[in-house]
Amino acid sequence: MTPDQINLPGPLAEVTAAFERYETALTANDVAVLDLLFHDDARTIRYGIGENLYGHAEIAAYRAGRPAKGLDRTLERTEITTYGTDFATAMTLFRRTPGKIGRQSQTWARIDGEWRIVAAHVSVIDDPEGA
Amino acid sequence: MTPDQINLPGPLAEVTAAFERYETALTANDVAVLDLLFHDDARTIRYGIGENLYGHAEIAAYRAGRPAKGLDRTLERTEITTYGTDFATAMTLFRRTPGKIGRQSQTWARIDGEWRIVAAHVSVIDDPEGA
Repeated sequence: MTPDQINLPGPLAEVTAAFERYETALTANDVAVLDLLFHDDARTIRYGIGENLYGHAEIAAYRAGRPAKGLDRTLERTEITTYGTDFATAMTLFRRTPGKIGRQSQTWARIDGEWRIVAAHVSVIDDPEGA
Repeated sequence: MTPDQINLPGPLAEVTAAFERYETALTANDVAVLDLLFHDDARTIRYGIGENLYGHAEIAAYRAGRPAKGLDRTLERTEITTYGTDFATAMTLFRRTPGKIGRQSQTWARIDGEWRIVAAHVSVIDDPEGA
């Protein structure tokens, strides 16, 4: 691809909508939508705050066993970037606990016409800015 | 894209080579190669073990100031997956400190013919398996 294929308006709008759908499902613990939005494939990987999940089955099992409370958070510095028409990254910081900053990164691919997360990584660190 | 475009042999070999080049540069603290392999763009993002870097300039500044010692590590469960001909994820666990497990995720894109990291996330957690 070429640099002028970064952030084409159509794909960017589509991934932004998909990202927002995911965020709504996450804070509501809508497991069906969360499972849907991760690509159903053994090669899909999610590194979570405290667990390393390889394959959609492990991710779905984790979702099914997760406490449904305390999931609210606020996002900061969210950056969605599309590359061509079928690939994107979604990077965001989030706050849930004072003094801590969360980081969530997702790689999205449009597979058979549907935007799906193929890889994700979530971690929480002490806020480097002390806020 | 379609599922049969995942892990085409040509792109998979190319990204595997690029990933290995990055790993060698990382443990040797070869800053020039590390800077080269991250896409030189303000939209490139790297969440590190203790810092959140937005744009290639912030990433390069971090590399320039990083201690050059103690970077050795061993990789585990490395999974490189390509999507079509121009996009890939590279997910790996790593060990550097006993009792801790590192996670490194990278999103690669082939831009103007060269494979480059457009997003990365590194974090270290207590090893869930206690090893």
